[in-house]
Amino acid sequence: MSKHTDVNTLGEFGLIDHLTQHVELSNGETYLGIGDDAALIDRGDGYYSVISTDMMVEGIHFDLMYSPLKHLGYKAVVTNLSDIYAMNATPDQITVSIAISSKYSVEALEELYQGINTACKRYGVDLIGGDTTSSPKGMIISVTAIGKVEKGKEAVRSGAALDDIVCVTGDLGAAYLGLQLLEREKQLYLSQPETQPDLEQASYLVERQLKPEANKAAVDYFTKVGLVPTAMIDVSDGLASELFHIAKASGVGIIIEESKVPIHPDTQEMALKFNIDPITCALNGGEDYELLFTVNPRDLDKVRYMPDVFIIGDIVEHANGVKLFSTGGKLHPMKAQGWNHFESKE
Amino acid sequence: MSKHTDVNTLGEFGLIDHLTQHVELSNGETYLGIGDDAALIDRGDGYYSVISTDMMVEGIHFDLMYSPLKHLGYKAVVTNLSDIYAMNATPDQITVSIAISSKYSVEALEELYQGINTACKRYGVDLIGGDTTSSPKGMIISVTAIGKVEKGKEAVRSGAALDDIVCVTGDLGAAYLGLQLLEREKQLYLSQPETQPDLEQASYLVERQLKPEANKAAVDYFTKVGLVPTAMIDVSDGLASELFHIAKASGVGIIIEESKVPIHPDTQEMALKFNIDPITCALNGGEDYELLFTVNPRDLDKVRYMPDVFIIGDIVEHANGVKLFSTGGKLHPMKAQGWNHFESKE
Repeated sequence: MSKHTDVNTLGEFGLIDHLTQHVELSNGETYLGIGDDAALIDRGDGYYSVISTDMMVEGIHFDLMYSPLKHLGYKAVVTNLSDIYAMNATPDQITVSIAISSKYSVEALEELYQGINTACKRYGVDLIGGDTTSSPKGMIISVTAIGKVEKGKEAVRSGAALDDIVCVTGDLGAAYLGLQLLEREKQLYLSQPETQPDLEQASYLVERQLKPEANKAAVDYFTKVGLVPTAMIDVSDGLASELFHIAKASGVGIIIEESKVPIHPDTQEMALKFNIDPITCALNGGEDYELLFTVNPRDLDKVRYMPDVFIIGDIVEHANGVKLFSTGGKLHPMKAQGWNHFESKE
Repeated sequence: MSKHTDVNTLGEFGLIDHLTQHVELSNGETYLGIGDDAALIDRGDGYYSVISTDMMVEGIHFDLMYSPLKHLGYKAVVTNLSDIYAMNATPDQITVSIAISSKYSVEALEELYQGINTACKRYGVDLIGGDTTSSPKGMIISVTAIGKVEKGKEAVRSGAALDDIVCVTGDLGAAYLGLQLLEREKQLYLSQPETQPDLEQASYLVERQLKPEANKAAVDYFTKVGLVPTAMIDVSDGLASELFHIAKASGVGIIIEESKVPIHPDTQEMALKFNIDPITCALNGGEDYELLFTVNPRDLDKVRYMPDVFIIGDIVEHANGVKLFSTGGKLHPMKAQGWNHFESKE
């Protein structure tokens, strides 16, 4: 009998590492392959092409009971653009492939494409291709984003160095709580279909979940002031997971101050209602699509004058690991939980 | 009540046209968007980036009862590379995104990646990124291929002109019959599990279906002899469907001679066993991944000395439509049937 190792045993990142361990790069124009927010290809004109791709699966990444199709199309684009910005690059084009079961109407797809087109206009990218096919069950959306960055301006995960400052562009944990809320209302509705969902008090959290934005403004600011982050990544799987990616790729340790991690008042309040520590939402929640980046201390002034930025910690020696300096004054080792699609949804 | 138009009513290409009718291109570097085998982006160094993407869904595009995972990975790459070659371009990189249900083991994914890596090596492309996630059911593979072509050497669908010669790089219809055979053996096995499949006599047909190749050699030849096809497309949906794409995009008519359409002896024989006219397999079968192209008559000599090429017809006035000059000496209007995933598999 042939061996059967459960895919759940490796975790998402472990599985990708395992499957791509034998990948060799042989094309001279490939500058950076698997393992960052996006790949870099030498264009030959002083720029890199920046390529990122993501797949969203109904029942895993979204639930059409509470995701309007327009928002879903918008989000599918934005989450990919976020990966391009995370390289300090500008997105220019996207392709969108969709598989749908026959339960979807042409009108439903029109709504989805409205959201896609709205995102394209807002971020100045062109929809240049894709594929439309049927699926035996549900909807699958695969987006590839193409951008560019001037050589030398790219921000990869591996560039963080000792004493660099760790920053994030916005508050964390809100999208996670938005999801918890939507899930709770869904369960309520399923058990008591006559109840109306009450999400008015939670519009910020729900919008962060259903219609996130990519942080174009941050990358525009970097260009304006001539700042190149030493490392950058977007917060899609939770702050802790992203910190571990930077620490591993850069061969450094990181200490984050709990009191400095930005958490929106609505997130604070709702976390307490759900009986979760707000910092846990920020560390392990995910889908915030803010940019986490590090800068050389000599660039501190440029960061200080940046709108909507939070300095949350420091790069330290590798031996220190990745730790949280709690409000209680203690150093806690972090865990890279983040999302694990293979564990959470079977 | 909101309107519900069945996606089946428009057909695959009608649906894509409908959904993308409001797409506007605003980025100055986008040279060619939706509507060809691949999109073209100005790299700024005298080349276009060439981008193509495709999605393969279990139960629609492949059946793991008879598709070895290694071949499936190989085919997923090759079919995308074929789209890059169809622009007279060279593929350089791919990204691969995969969604899988928990029934798949790590070993199964390793096999899939073996096929992906083998195709990458054979065609000299780098695997530079992707996404791995879970699906509630089955496997979905989405591949994006990135290539390049020197400006002025690109072969788009819209360039065919009156009196151009229509050529194809290899025999057609075999992959379709391979699929019919595999389906027949599957049904036999399901009804009589003790029977062993007998596919030895049909290895050519089965291989064309399960492990197709992209026609790199043709594009290499074009480069070598300095020939730029006036139009080109790869035969993925059947000859008739591709002829209609060229006719529509170029605003021309096409007449194909039935007796010139290359059909392998094994295809001939098996078609008769299945009681299908062999020319029907060539016209409407699909998945041959040969290149269909047109050349200016002054380039006739360059085509004559090309290995493995077949001159099958001529570009005529638009008013003539797309027709087949049959072996019986009559002109028959063709129908663009091809594959229609939305119709055939519900």
